Amino acid sequence: MSEREKMIKGEEYFPQDFELTQDRIKAKIICTKYNSLSPEQKEEKYKILKSLFGKIGDDCVVEPNFFCDYGYNIEFDGFVYINHNSVFLDCAKISIGHGTFIGPNCGFYTPTHPLEYEKRITGVEIAKPIKIGQGVWIGGNVTILAGVTIGDRAVIGAGSVVTKDIPNDVVAVGNPCKVIKKIANSQSK
Amino acid sequence: MSEREKMIKGEEYFPQDFELTQDRIKAKIICTKYNSLSPEQKEEKYKILKSLFGKIGDDCVVEPNFFCDYGYNIEFDGFVYINHNSVFLDCAKISIGHGTFIGPNCGFYTPTHPLEYEKRITGVEIAKPIKIGQGVWIGGNVTILAGVTIGDRAVIGAGSVVTKDIPNDVVAVGNPCKVIKKIANSQSK
Amino acid sequence: MSEREKMIKGEEYFPQDFELTQDRIKAKIICTKYNSLSPEQKEEKYKILKSLFGKIGDDCVVEPNFFCDYGYNIEFDGFVYINHNSVFLDCAKISIGHGTFIGPNCGFYTPTHPLEYEKRITGVEIAKPIKIGQGVWIGGNVTILAGVTIGDRAVIGAGSVVTKDIPNDVVAVGNPCKVIKKIANSQSK
Repeated sequence: MSEREKMIKGEEYFPQDFELTQDRIKAKIICTKYNSLSPEQKEEKYKILKSLFGKIGDDCVVEPNFFCDYGYNIEFDGFVYINHNSVFLDCAKISIGHGTFIGPNCGFYTPTHPLEYEKRITGVEIAKPIKIGQGVWIGGNVTILAGVTIGDRAVIGAGSVVTKDIPNDVVAVGNPCKVIKKIANSQSK
Repeated sequence: MSEREKMIKGEEYFPQDFELTQDRIKAKIICTKYNSLSPEQKEEKYKILKSLFGKIGDDCVVEPNFFCDYGYNIEFDGFVYINHNSVFLDCAKISIGHGTFIGPNCGFYTPTHPLEYEKRITGVEIAKPIKIGQGVWIGGNVTILAGVTIGDRAVIGAGSVVTKDIPNDVVAVGNPCKVIKKIANSQSK
Repeated sequence: MSEREKMIKGEEYFPQDFELTQDRIKAKIICTKYNSLSPEQKEEKYKILKSLFGKIGDDCVVEPNFFCDYGYNIEFDGFVYINHNSVFLDCAKISIGHGTFIGPNCGFYTPTHPLEYEKRITGVEIAKPIKIGQGVWIGGNVTILAGVTIGDRAVIGAGSVVTKDIPNDVVAVGNPCKVIKKIANSQSK
């Protein structure tokens, strides 16, 4: 298996690999171009996202500046709105459901390094997917860690650090992010 | 009432409205231009802020990159210094008093979405003003939420998430941000 | 002593000083140039960092956008990798050891202002050095405050606010950042 295949399968891989390094440079050139465009160039911006992402719904908006590692592991399953200064480290899949909007300065980080130092210093990584449901509202300055699933219609308070799964139809806040209440009258009933 | 009038009055509004969308595009074109200028172009940068903001004092500095939604709801009542990478979602008024300095990566977020899902998915928002007093020091990576007032001469620790009002002459820190001590010898005495 | 000499010695200084202001403009012009380069221009980017920093090891990478105050107080003692959107307020020295990698959206803030209002409003600052050891892994969205030392091989969880020293060979997380476990099998044994 190539390092890219190992990365996507969730196995240990070396990101310094030539093919992965080329993939990242290619994606970051596209992000740099994207961030230089004028807010008026709506169609050109959408075309770039469509070419970069694994999947994208109609009318999605990603405000600049936007950076990612690969792009092909990002999947927007419908309409998604992402405010300014997001960073997607998409070594594993990052999928976001229809009708989800995300505040400024949010980070989605799928890669992890070993805690054990001798192993960590080799540069090996393991990536775990992030899955954000449909109709989710994520506030500004939220950090979402490797392996996390956020349920449908959930609300994540600004400044939260999401280290564990969040169920459907709840409000969750804090560092680490914890459920503080259920959302009434939701479609889950 | 137009959606813009409803937004500014603190009533429910739809940001997808044509007029508001045009206002945001206009502001973001100006931000993009602003962020592309050289640090040497001090006068040109100040002129741009003066044309964009509702109000600005002399010698104010906003380090790049800077993004906002409308600009006309931002009011700097005197000298204000804002470090790199600030985001102002100024759907309601964001006012900052004279002699206040603000660290890098701070976010000021006035819009809120309904928690109830059926209502939230319509895209409706309500915005609440943010008011920062005079002589305030806000550390880096601070998030300030809709409706918050921060009192004069207060100090907000780096990394705080300010969800409720902070009085005059205190130090407050944390997520959520809480008062940890009064500041001695201040002008409030 | 000049204000620059006072700043570097850790004494009270006035950053509005002409010489320091010129130093910051010079550094920020270089950062603006750096951030405009294509990810392909690896050698040109490295040359810029080498000219800007006090010290840099081979093959160091700093992803855009990157901002600092002076540059000459940043020392990378070997190979260091810094992900997107870092901000270094390097009024005192910020040193980072060999084999350390740092996630996106991290802030390193050496300057502090007095709490006492009458003194603070004069604009006076004191800067305290930040020292990050060798083989450290710092997650995304981490804020590191003035005077902090992070020990060798430590791991700092994403979203942490590091207000106090962290020893060697531990995992530390949270706001404020606290040690949650020792790292087994490390070279410290």
